[in-house]
Amino acid sequence: MLFTDQYELTMGQLYYRLGLHETVVQFDHFFRNYPDYGAHKAGYCVNAGLEWLLDWMQDAHFRQDDLEYLRGQTGRVGSRLFSDDFLDWLRKNGTFEGLSMRAIPEGRVVHPNEPLTVVQGPLAAAQLLETSLLNHLNFQILIATKAARIRSAALRDSIPEGGRGPLMLEFGMRRGHGTGANAAGRAALIGGADYSSNVGLSHVLGYPPKGTHAHSMIQVFMSLGMSELEAFRAYAEVYPDDCLLLVDTIDTLESGVPNAIRVFQELRRKGHEPQGIRLDSGDLAYLSIQAARMLNDAGLPNIVIVLSNDLDELVILQILTQIGHEASRYGVDPDELMGRLVYGVGTRLITSWGQPALGGVYKLVAVRDGRRTTPLRSEIPWVPAIKVSESSDKTPNPGHKLAWRVYDRRGLAIADLLSLDDEEPRHMNPLVLRHPSDHAKYRTLDEGDVAEIEPLLVDVLLDGRRVYDLPSIEEMRARRRADVERLDPGVRRLLNPHVYHVSLTQRLWDLKQELIRSAMEKSH
Amino acid sequence: MLFTDQYELTMGQLYYRLGLHETVVQFDHFFRNYPDYGAHKAGYCVNAGLEWLLDWMQDAHFRQDDLEYLRGQTGRVGSRLFSDDFLDWLRKNGTFEGLSMRAIPEGRVVHPNEPLTVVQGPLAAAQLLETSLLNHLNFQILIATKAARIRSAALRDSIPEGGRGPLMLEFGMRRGHGTGANAAGRAALIGGADYSSNVGLSHVLGYPPKGTHAHSMIQVFMSLGMSELEAFRAYAEVYPDDCLLLVDTIDTLESGVPNAIRVFQELRRKGHEPQGIRLDSGDLAYLSIQAARMLNDAGLPNIVIVLSNDLDELVILQILTQIGHEASRYGVDPDELMGRLVYGVGTRLITSWGQPALGGVYKLVAVRDGRRTTPLRSEIPWVPAIKVSESSDKTPNPGHKLAWRVYDRRGLAIADLLSLDDEEPRHMNPLVLRHPSDHAKYRTLDEGDVAEIEPLLVDVLLDGRRVYDLPSIEEMRARRRADVERLDPGVRRLLNPHVYHVSLTQRLWDLKQELIRSAMEKSH
Repeated sequence: MLFTDQYELTMGQLYYRLGLHETVVQFDHFFRNYPDYGAHKAGYCVNAGLEWLLDWMQDAHFRQDDLEYLRGQTGRVGSRLFSDDFLDWLRKNGTFEGLSMRAIPEGRVVHPNEPLTVVQGPLAAAQLLETSLLNHLNFQILIATKAARIRSAALRDSIPEGGRGPLMLEFGMRRGHGTGANAAGRAALIGGADYSSNVGLSHVLGYPPKGTHAHSMIQVFMSLGMSELEAFRAYAEVYPDDCLLLVDTIDTLESGVPNAIRVFQELRRKGHEPQGIRLDSGDLAYLSIQAARMLNDAGLPNIVIVLSNDLDELVILQILTQIGHEASRYGVDPDELMGRLVYGVGTRLITSWGQPALGGVYKLVAVRDGRRTTPLRSEIPWVPAIKVSESSDKTPNPGHKLAWRVYDRRGLAIADLLSLDDEEPRHMNPLVLRHPSDHAKYRTLDEGDVAEIEPLLVDVLLDGRRVYDLPSIEEMRARRRADVERLDPGVRRLLNPHVYHVSLTQRLWDLKQELIRSAMEKSH
Repeated sequence: MLFTDQYELTMGQLYYRLGLHETVVQFDHFFRNYPDYGAHKAGYCVNAGLEWLLDWMQDAHFRQDDLEYLRGQTGRVGSRLFSDDFLDWLRKNGTFEGLSMRAIPEGRVVHPNEPLTVVQGPLAAAQLLETSLLNHLNFQILIATKAARIRSAALRDSIPEGGRGPLMLEFGMRRGHGTGANAAGRAALIGGADYSSNVGLSHVLGYPPKGTHAHSMIQVFMSLGMSELEAFRAYAEVYPDDCLLLVDTIDTLESGVPNAIRVFQELRRKGHEPQGIRLDSGDLAYLSIQAARMLNDAGLPNIVIVLSNDLDELVILQILTQIGHEASRYGVDPDELMGRLVYGVGTRLITSWGQPALGGVYKLVAVRDGRRTTPLRSEIPWVPAIKVSESSDKTPNPGHKLAWRVYDRRGLAIADLLSLDDEEPRHMNPLVLRHPSDHAKYRTLDEGDVAEIEPLLVDVLLDGRRVYDLPSIEEMRARRRADVERLDPGVRRLLNPHVYHVSLTQRLWDLKQELIRSAMEKSH
């Protein structure tokens, strides 16, 4: 439970002292901007992290040791920071059992300024959740999004995804941020990696981990007076049906690939099908073309070629572009080569290189006085809360809201729509989509324009009780694939994507304007 | 123990199968380049992470459940990947009890291409350690380095560090990479933060966590029909001696600061000393000048001003430069204002924004046949191993080495020096410093140029037994302060730092050239 910021606890005590700790409130978790990697920016995000947050919440409570630590904290003049009655309250009530939660499921495509996770319940508990919620969700969304981009760069329309083996492996553990490497591995699997090299994480998720071998293996053999060929042979001997050889320790084309081919042919003669080679340095486009040529000439056209070494979506884009231009010149079919490539993606995936944080926030959007019951979609009115920012696009959307996705007749998502809790956009005709901050911008859709309006939020917790069947990672991956496919190609592209609209209904727009007006009046 | 990459295990089995698993080897951990944040680059790093790595190593073993998971793994044709005899060996021997380790202590300034951590011992165990060692050390070095830079930007020579309160607070948990936020918080404390907001981490390290309050606290009050002033008063009531108020929820200069002043004066009348305000948006230089002016005019010159909102070393540099230029114009003494600023640093510290990974590697540098004894500095000769890279500066320094720091008569560090294990640079006169890859570059120092030559590596583990008294975080911080002070100001500066030299002795240089020659011959 101490996986939190100190101020959540000091605010908690203040609410307790004032008798506000059981006031029912709503916080929305959302992000304001897509990740911007410097040279390029995302056009969509992939939601992730909910399950691990729920697991953490379920176990979270104040242990005796935690309470003693808080009891020992003193302020500047030496008096205790937390009083016994508050600590006693924490001991009895410092859990998340009173909270209700709605969320957009993991794996779904999401966009800025829409509520991804909605928390309702007693103020003290909802406030105490803030830091851990942001920590769990922001990071997994960040990495799932990066993984989806890298996968989309690696996928070629000319090569059907079904039927081929793994396309993308997560290899970043050694460059991950401490044990955050585990959350990153999970998010990478949701977002687009087929497998991870992280053994413990794969165990937890029930996936087989994947890997090859390191340069050090070749070096050990050479230091003991043996050769690269002997190292390869030893590997083939131990893993005859899973023989994937790293070929760049000495010289890729002069030594590594010829030695690998020799060992592969020996394996074949013994009735085993060799698996692949890995290239980890140099000009990966050029080397993969040459390696493919040599493998083809040796009658080994099915050997996969794993590429690694600081890959990301732009590096992959460049490699594939170069292969498209150059492969034929060497007698290699570009599509055939692209179809046998596998990407081992490490540092730049696990750190979301270029944008290592998602600016997700957790904002108070509504308050309700009264009893501690928190039925979702309750008829009891909420008081919407607003924080007016200097820039109007930073002002959060207030109140108790629903989120919807609008699909056109092509089956493509054309906008997400936020409504008040009691609105039903599926019955609105025409459907007015207001820009969240610019009053001059809106769109009107007739029934004929709209094929489907889909609610995005599902009930997850009701007064702390889980009312949601957690999907498997495979289901999340299927969700992500389906959602990405239903994006306009302009939104999906890696560079300069189209802006996807997250709009407000007329009534939500009116409420927001009214609250801004009233807040401005109060402050002047 | 499964906090590792799959290939460490498959290589482990290969070594076991070939009877090489107890061959004694040496791996060096080092990084090749300083973090490069895009607009600017580090001139030094701060070492960190060792203690948590040692803790992990001490507990690491294969539990029955881990072994069952490995037993269930199958290759492409369905046969088992790991055999019973190897799993049995892992169960009995899969620990780090046979390893010896030397390391540069945490908190010390370190540089590229010098061994930060040296692991000696049986090949299988040393290989199994790789991923976790890199994960633990790379990340904490990255963050400790960033923290040291941010602290150095915040420190002004005109303001003595001693005697003032905290200067820098780590606030980044919500943007950290999952539970990696804990390792980041620890590294931030070693590198330069005075405190962290992370409660659990502070508990583990025995520090008091620090924090203020959130915008949501003001919003709750306003949604319930009360005002910012009433929220501030409530906070002052509960925390009269630790009253630090966030003043930008409505309007910093029109509402927040005047309300804070009113509450501070009320506190004063009740005999309490108010603490500070926090600015979290807008032009922090301008707002801090105006806030200081208003606080001074109200007779509150000792109120600290906490700045937050995407701070990093360049943002702080810019804020302080602007204060230096503009404060006097508003009747505020710039030094006095700079002396009361406190920096709450979040996202850009905890993610090492601009360079979210340190490219630290773990390379085989020596192999020894024979029995399993591993006395450090043994007389039994090692076979140095080398991996020749295409670029000569990427070729690791081979063999069994020592690392030294050379200080000049001013007491400043002028170079680090790597020697062979049996060399004693303190007895060399003149001292020749060879460039690690450019044969034309070397420096010769006479006795008169050198004040001190200090060995950097200390013995940490001897055959798995800890022979090192772990320093406290305070001792690491003192180490870092002393080492940074002994850097040339040109190396220390934030932008375009001088290159600090890590050199080789003549004999190590000769050995490296000989190994490269011999490796090139073998490969052609």
